[in-house]
Amino acid sequence: MAEWIDLIIRKREGEALEPEEISGFVEAVQREEVPVEQAAAFLMAVVIRGLDEQETTSFARAFLSSGQTLRFNEFTYPPIDLGETGGLGGKAAIIALPTAAVYGVKLPVVADRSLRHNGGLLDKFEAVPGFRTDLSLAEFQESVRSTGIAVIGQTMDLAPAEIRVNQLRANTGSLGGVSLTVAGLLARKAAAGTRGLVVEIACGSGGLAKNLAEAHSLADDLFAVGEYLGIRIGGCITERDNPLGHAIGDSLEMQEAIAVLKGEGPADVKEVAVNLAASLLVIGQLVADHAQGRNLAQEAIADGRALAKLKEFVTNQGGDGQALDNPEQLPRGQGRRDVVTQRSGYLKAIDGAALGDSWLALGGSRIRRGDSTDHRVGLWVHKKIGDKVERGDTLVTLHTSEKSKVDAAIESAEEAFLISPEPADKRRLILENFGRVR
Amino acid sequence: MAEWIDLIIRKREGEALEPEEISGFVEAVQREEVPVEQAAAFLMAVVIRGLDEQETTSFARAFLSSGQTLRFNEFTYPPIDLGETGGLGGKAAIIALPTAAVYGVKLPVVADRSLRHNGGLLDKFEAVPGFRTDLSLAEFQESVRSTGIAVIGQTMDLAPAEIRVNQLRANTGSLGGVSLTVAGLLARKAAAGTRGLVVEIACGSGGLAKNLAEAHSLADDLFAVGEYLGIRIGGCITERDNPLGHAIGDSLEMQEAIAVLKGEGPADVKEVAVNLAASLLVIGQLVADHAQGRNLAQEAIADGRALAKLKEFVTNQGGDGQALDNPEQLPRGQGRRDVVTQRSGYLKAIDGAALGDSWLALGGSRIRRGDSTDHRVGLWVHKKIGDKVERGDTLVTLHTSEKSKVDAAIESAEEAFLISPEPADKRRLILENFGRVR
Repeated sequence: MAEWIDLIIRKREGEALEPEEISGFVEAVQREEVPVEQAAAFLMAVVIRGLDEQETTSFARAFLSSGQTLRFNEFTYPPIDLGETGGLGGKAAIIALPTAAVYGVKLPVVADRSLRHNGGLLDKFEAVPGFRTDLSLAEFQESVRSTGIAVIGQTMDLAPAEIRVNQLRANTGSLGGVSLTVAGLLARKAAAGTRGLVVEIACGSGGLAKNLAEAHSLADDLFAVGEYLGIRIGGCITERDNPLGHAIGDSLEMQEAIAVLKGEGPADVKEVAVNLAASLLVIGQLVADHAQGRNLAQEAIADGRALAKLKEFVTNQGGDGQALDNPEQLPRGQGRRDVVTQRSGYLKAIDGAALGDSWLALGGSRIRRGDSTDHRVGLWVHKKIGDKVERGDTLVTLHTSEKSKVDAAIESAEEAFLISPEPADKRRLILENFGRVR
Repeated sequence: MAEWIDLIIRKREGEALEPEEISGFVEAVQREEVPVEQAAAFLMAVVIRGLDEQETTSFARAFLSSGQTLRFNEFTYPPIDLGETGGLGGKAAIIALPTAAVYGVKLPVVADRSLRHNGGLLDKFEAVPGFRTDLSLAEFQESVRSTGIAVIGQTMDLAPAEIRVNQLRANTGSLGGVSLTVAGLLARKAAAGTRGLVVEIACGSGGLAKNLAEAHSLADDLFAVGEYLGIRIGGCITERDNPLGHAIGDSLEMQEAIAVLKGEGPADVKEVAVNLAASLLVIGQLVADHAQGRNLAQEAIADGRALAKLKEFVTNQGGDGQALDNPEQLPRGQGRRDVVTQRSGYLKAIDGAALGDSWLALGGSRIRRGDSTDHRVGLWVHKKIGDKVERGDTLVTLHTSEKSKVDAAIESAEEAFLISPEPADKRRLILENFGRVR
């Protein structure tokens, strides 16, 4: 029992730990040699005291070496992954991935599931009937080779120690802080053979980073760990006091992403998607600069190649192509409830956490990993910050399936909108690009 | 598994918790309804983030109500306990308790065992052959009534939730911080029927409080929780860059305390003991002021009544009275090793932690609760800060029993003494009295 106490005490007192101490801990957790109460106490101390870059890197390396690492040695260009760190309505990846794949970027994607206010790409694709996320590693590699994109969740083959650590953190209230999150994210990606990563950092009340300083700190951690693991990092920080687009929820978001790929859909979603696709092309070394990447991305969307690539990859993973042609047929709850404003004025602020709670209350996300979710429910947000609103306007429409969950969802949604008599500034969407794509 | 997560997260983020949340947690720990990993994570967050006075009080109340509470309703005066918070060589209680009992103070003492650098009164009394610390609660109460003093350790009848919490903290590296320590200390004392508590706060490199600010913070916590539990608080803060007296170790300390009771022994031990005994008389409402208490205490020592009371109480708990008459016969390891200085000059500093490590290495204290200790070993410190020393002088003599433990103990002891060519100031012994005895 005593073996780990000195390590725990030193982290409790805020000391930085040596690489071999961290790898020793992670290996012992993996072998189930650390009593859970000691592991939990240690992880709580880590989350409260934080990790420096070297410690974060040590965790990432230890996570990575706990499982298999895939290699795509036959590719001319480095395989790239795309990640979104939180953010309500973050469906730009659904568009950006096939857009970049049109030009030959290879995309072995290890995606997350929705958790609390964070939407997960895995759940969004699963809104398409038949879509399989349980590919074997051999199927995964073959799909990347054949269609350019494959999407799986983390399996016990890839960075399994990170799964154990994360389960323990989730069960003991220590999921806060970004360092372990970054270490885990990059370890999972690296294990799947990725050599580059484009990240959208959602910044604001609906994002993981609450402000620009937190977003920069997250980017710094990504750079530090990425450099060590040989993963090129790029991406953008996006404003997320507003949800992206109108749709929150798996089916609704898939529908909205398809609309953009058909030349319809909201401009903000397209803008972020084009920006991310351009970054994928730059990091993937297929274009010289971001402007060139944007042009290519817009072309592939305009001429339908991006939508065709989405259909190719989705059907390759078992998804129903018909549903992509007629996205209004994606599974949808039957209930509709409008939240209507009693005030006229300007929409001054949206509380992303309250919208996230509403979505969670409808059953669209999970409180804990392993919970079930409902792809059919969601929110359709009609107004953005800065919009003029009149008494009687609908602010958001809830798409519901279980009646017992509606009241709590409406209550949260009603609390999410602040209307003021003063005009409010519209927000800038892409706050900055960072990394090798700047 | 999820029940406690919100509470853990809120403490992780530094929020203050409500009394019923804390009592709910402590009760659930007691009923073994909190998964150990969640309890460990919560306690780590508590220790790092700290507790305010209300939270500390809530823990104390919850600990107290988890077991029995003894009552001594027949006594005219409130029963008092005496506590020492850390400090090497803290044997003043051995003298102060019988001195105060001479005048009728009733002393139901719940004492600690030695842990790391903190000596425990229970172990010191157990150096007397035959001394029983496992009295039943009925025997304990009867002994307080008949002799004025009884000493037991915490049993599973008294504040058992505190025992569980403390075991978990010890096993998971979260014993730091003073708030939970104070809550636990006062809950144990209150459970044994105490209505007043005199505390010696040892301050310096060999004490729990490293400086006066920490000592004051500890005193403030004692007052806050004491007021809530109806326990009058008083005591003193003593300088503990120096060990108290010469002796560190159970038999050696018992021998030194008896020497003081015989009118011999070092002046600093006597001074602290008289000071504490006076505080016991004040808190016990038997004298009007501290000066009067000091006079009575000195009288009881000078005329042998205090020594007689010690013998009465020790033999009442099964201890061998002969050993008290001839304390050089107390069990003692056979080995003697002197640490001799190679430098001449002035003793400028003593590193109490290094001396504590030396004692620990000899086997005199425990690394963990439940470990065994050796009453026979110890250190006899010959020099105090400010003393002039000549090359070849012995700084400390180690009393050893197991050869395999000697080298590490000598190494630590050698590191404990800083000798400088400059004269160093002697230290003030009693830094201040506090509470109702000031």
